[in-house]
Amino acid sequence: MPSLRVAAAQINPTVGDLEGNRDRILSFLAEGEAQGCDLVCFPELSLCGYPPEDLLLKDGFLRDTRAMLDEVAAATTDCVAVVGGVLEVDRSSPRLAAPRDARLPGEGGTPQLANVAVVMAHGKILGVVAKRLLPNYAVFDEQRWFLPGEGPYDLFRIGGAIVGVTVCEDLWSAQGPAAGIAREGASLILSINASPFSLGQHDERRRVLSERVSETGAAIVYVNQVGGQDELVFDGGSMVVNDQGHLLARSPSFVEHLLIADLEFHGHDDEVTDAVHEISSTSRRSGPPIEGDVADDAGENAEAYEALVVGTRDYLRKNGFTRAVIGLSGGIDSTLVATIAVDALGAENVHGISMPSRYSSDHSRSDAEDLAARLGIVLDTVEIEAAHVAFGGMLKGILGAEVEGLTDENLQSRLRGVLLMAYSNDTGAIVLTTGNKSEMATGYSTLYGDSAGGFAVIKDVPKTLVYDLCRYRNERAVLEGLVPPIPQEVIDKPPSAELRPDQKDEDSLPPYELLDPILAAYVEFDHTAPELVALGHDPVLVERVVNLVDTAEYKRRQMPPGVRITSKAFGKDRRMPITNRYRPRITR
Amino acid sequence: MPSLRVAAAQINPTVGDLEGNRDRILSFLAEGEAQGCDLVCFPELSLCGYPPEDLLLKDGFLRDTRAMLDEVAAATTDCVAVVGGVLEVDRSSPRLAAPRDARLPGEGGTPQLANVAVVMAHGKILGVVAKRLLPNYAVFDEQRWFLPGEGPYDLFRIGGAIVGVTVCEDLWSAQGPAAGIAREGASLILSINASPFSLGQHDERRRVLSERVSETGAAIVYVNQVGGQDELVFDGGSMVVNDQGHLLARSPSFVEHLLIADLEFHGHDDEVTDAVHEISSTSRRSGPPIEGDVADDAGENAEAYEALVVGTRDYLRKNGFTRAVIGLSGGIDSTLVATIAVDALGAENVHGISMPSRYSSDHSRSDAEDLAARLGIVLDTVEIEAAHVAFGGMLKGILGAEVEGLTDENLQSRLRGVLLMAYSNDTGAIVLTTGNKSEMATGYSTLYGDSAGGFAVIKDVPKTLVYDLCRYRNERAVLEGLVPPIPQEVIDKPPSAELRPDQKDEDSLPPYELLDPILAAYVEFDHTAPELVALGHDPVLVERVVNLVDTAEYKRRQMPPGVRITSKAFGKDRRMPITNRYRPRITR
Repeated sequence: MPSLRVAAAQINPTVGDLEGNRDRILSFLAEGEAQGCDLVCFPELSLCGYPPEDLLLKDGFLRDTRAMLDEVAAATTDCVAVVGGVLEVDRSSPRLAAPRDARLPGEGGTPQLANVAVVMAHGKILGVVAKRLLPNYAVFDEQRWFLPGEGPYDLFRIGGAIVGVTVCEDLWSAQGPAAGIAREGASLILSINASPFSLGQHDERRRVLSERVSETGAAIVYVNQVGGQDELVFDGGSMVVNDQGHLLARSPSFVEHLLIADLEFHGHDDEVTDAVHEISSTSRRSGPPIEGDVADDAGENAEAYEALVVGTRDYLRKNGFTRAVIGLSGGIDSTLVATIAVDALGAENVHGISMPSRYSSDHSRSDAEDLAARLGIVLDTVEIEAAHVAFGGMLKGILGAEVEGLTDENLQSRLRGVLLMAYSNDTGAIVLTTGNKSEMATGYSTLYGDSAGGFAVIKDVPKTLVYDLCRYRNERAVLEGLVPPIPQEVIDKPPSAELRPDQKDEDSLPPYELLDPILAAYVEFDHTAPELVALGHDPVLVERVVNLVDTAEYKRRQMPPGVRITSKAFGKDRRMPITNRYRPRITR
Repeated sequence: MPSLRVAAAQINPTVGDLEGNRDRILSFLAEGEAQGCDLVCFPELSLCGYPPEDLLLKDGFLRDTRAMLDEVAAATTDCVAVVGGVLEVDRSSPRLAAPRDARLPGEGGTPQLANVAVVMAHGKILGVVAKRLLPNYAVFDEQRWFLPGEGPYDLFRIGGAIVGVTVCEDLWSAQGPAAGIAREGASLILSINASPFSLGQHDERRRVLSERVSETGAAIVYVNQVGGQDELVFDGGSMVVNDQGHLLARSPSFVEHLLIADLEFHGHDDEVTDAVHEISSTSRRSGPPIEGDVADDAGENAEAYEALVVGTRDYLRKNGFTRAVIGLSGGIDSTLVATIAVDALGAENVHGISMPSRYSSDHSRSDAEDLAARLGIVLDTVEIEAAHVAFGGMLKGILGAEVEGLTDENLQSRLRGVLLMAYSNDTGAIVLTTGNKSEMATGYSTLYGDSAGGFAVIKDVPKTLVYDLCRYRNERAVLEGLVPPIPQEVIDKPPSAELRPDQKDEDSLPPYELLDPILAAYVEFDHTAPELVALGHDPVLVERVVNLVDTAEYKRRQMPPGVRITSKAFGKDRRMPITNRYRPRITR
């Protein structure tokens, strides 16, 4: 029976950076080759970066991507590379069916593309496998750009083993191509992915791989990308599972990594069809066997925290920012954001500005100072009183009265937004906003005020998880023998926006322990208000919360991007109309 | 040969307003019935409003919509109603195929819905026809929610004629179901639509109808909705075309209208299959024949202007606003927006605020005053100097120097944004922003400054079209014997942001006559920079413009919604990643 040395190249590509991605692919390929690998797998669409979105509508982009694919192919030797790319479909090919809704070229509609795994060796492209299952739900719009693969399965003989290839979603359904590939004789499936992180996804992936192995009897090499791309963050978690279902090797999460393992096959290839692309009949393996390492499972809070760090770091780095500025109120949200920013960028690249108003408490100022000292960041303090007074006078003229109530609260928040943006314009530091998902959901924020900025680090983190992540981060520091970055006072005091005397969040919102479960049921699981009541939530509370969420849609539409960490973030994940009069009645 | 009296009910539904939409449908149906119609057609998804987007992921919403559909059916008599709705698919039905990428229920993925035309009469549902071609390009995401209809065509005998039904996109392709429906024996096709307005769409629709009639020999009743829904606006343009291709009747654009016409059929029904739903064998027609009116074609500028008026009016009305506030600079953009607002809401509901800074010219103030007088709106004036000075002092502390350059320009713009938002918070008036598409494209605007507000009326209007629409509106006033609303000085003077001494737009941007064609080619037609140069544009200019567009993506992501009037607006139409390093080189 054959044995193979396989590699999963868990890389961090950048959308549109064709040359950079090519170089990264070639460097990981060279390393795999040097280590005696028979094949190295790269993530889905890794040559152009994932997701390229409407760049795919540009003919020039497709031509340039195609040229880069040929360059990678030309550089291959006897070690096989499996690279994710995009190709225009030859409509005469039996391998790719026309979609049911295709308009003819020139009549509008989508171009005719396939999301492919390209198998290359010996300086050329030896096979192309198109993705068959195109996700068009949640954050995914793949039927906007791609046609599904169809027809017979392409198999390859590599190092003597019969190998099939799938692209991401293909592996997630028992109805996908894995079963057919195995039936045709493959003993190994290469699965190339760009599968975004969300809480719990890690275990889900392991489960899916187990199911496919037990259904097919084939071993699986699963490769996924790492890094942030706008709102998405990818954790990697690349794996090699043998044909008995044993996890031989797993990459550490959120870092680039070349995962190598030796695979022995226990089945037999007697019934292989003759439609196999012959690449190599013997393995390139040499030297001592490579066992492969299984990276530790870090736990949900650690994963979520790391997702926020990497998502923030990559958004800045890939968009040309090195420095960030944050308004530090002494509250828990800005405290967590500053801590994440320091972990992502280094203390020297994070600048805090404290902007007290006439309503700010002394402990807010001292908590912000304590935080800055623990993090080792510079903290400036600017009183907003002068601007507050100036606007009070200017507004009195047109409003005919003193500014008060919500108007005055929003005003203070916006004056801080103006200050931060001016600092950003002058220094080139990006403003990180500090709103959490519970605020985002209920509209408990000021448009152009506390929500003003370039990146909303914790916009998908519910308030109760904000507390958990702060505790996690402090515990980690203690384990590392370091000073906990987050002042205990910040965790202990009741949350407040401090925009009027003695204000507390609970004056305007239900306690977060009650609010967050309702928000999750309404936003992430799409229950309606009557259904929430039937599930046992308090009708008065449900009506209030649902109304807050529905009427805040216009605010969310103007929020900066931020890291998606739940199964449904605001943004591409949840496409709610702003104009929406659906308000089903709760019967009591 | 049979003859029929047909009606197209061009209504303005609201997304989620199930009861309101039901009542509107029943009232138009009663009118059609009273006028002796055999059938009344309503737009696509008119019961729930179009597009309902992710409301379709809520089981409760689907149940409530279904219940409302049954209520409408129960109210029908012998006049047939064809109503657009959504139904869950019975997966055992041969009429609806499982999609290739379906995950099984419980495995995630999309619910199993169909976008349907429901044929009802005599108090019940007599047939359901599912949309077969599901657009998943441009602003459309229909494959996110719906399965395509498949299998044999449903035909109905109504008033003795054989009738088939299509839903929107179905009619737009020669590969769609129209040909098959006619082949099976239909002499009339009912096409129910929710087809958004864009410039030129009017003629395109007429052309498509002509093609389908000449291919099929069937008459067509085409019904489309009117009104605004978030960024989309629908112009209606409902039509009745007979089986000779003659346009018998057309509704006026942008208003609700019941279009009635009598249709005589010249073909024969000999070859009708026996799979016809029998509804009525004789016509309900009575009284003198109804010839039907063909509404005038208004011309492109009139259409664009009316689209902006209706889109603005409906966004406010459907979201519960009656009043608007606009910062009036005396420039052409805010002038056009104020004029549109007055046409949409009435002068008494529009409030202007002039906010001069130390750099504002005298003519700006007088032009704003002249405009307000012509429009009959209240104009307040607030100098921003006090706040400008206050922020200068506050910022000097953290920046270590006087505020200057771009930071100072953005600061002034943001101070105005803060004032307008405070006015909005205090009075409940929505802020209408005044940026045009050329500014949106190049990022020539201040985030949270001039772009701050609830609705961006002209965000999809290129600057050169802004001038055209101003001239059009003045000419219309002259024809109507009224005072032209727009001061000629505003049209004649060179555009300026007036954020520093003697500033002109052309200091920062190419002349709009050169800029707009490059923007259209880059944004609407997806050419790359090298392709633009090959098309004959100046390489230096192309490089500069393309770079501006690419680096402004983050700003556009935080813009308020506004009316889409071109074939590709920023927003759902153009899904560009913010993080995007694709910068193809121009070779010279």
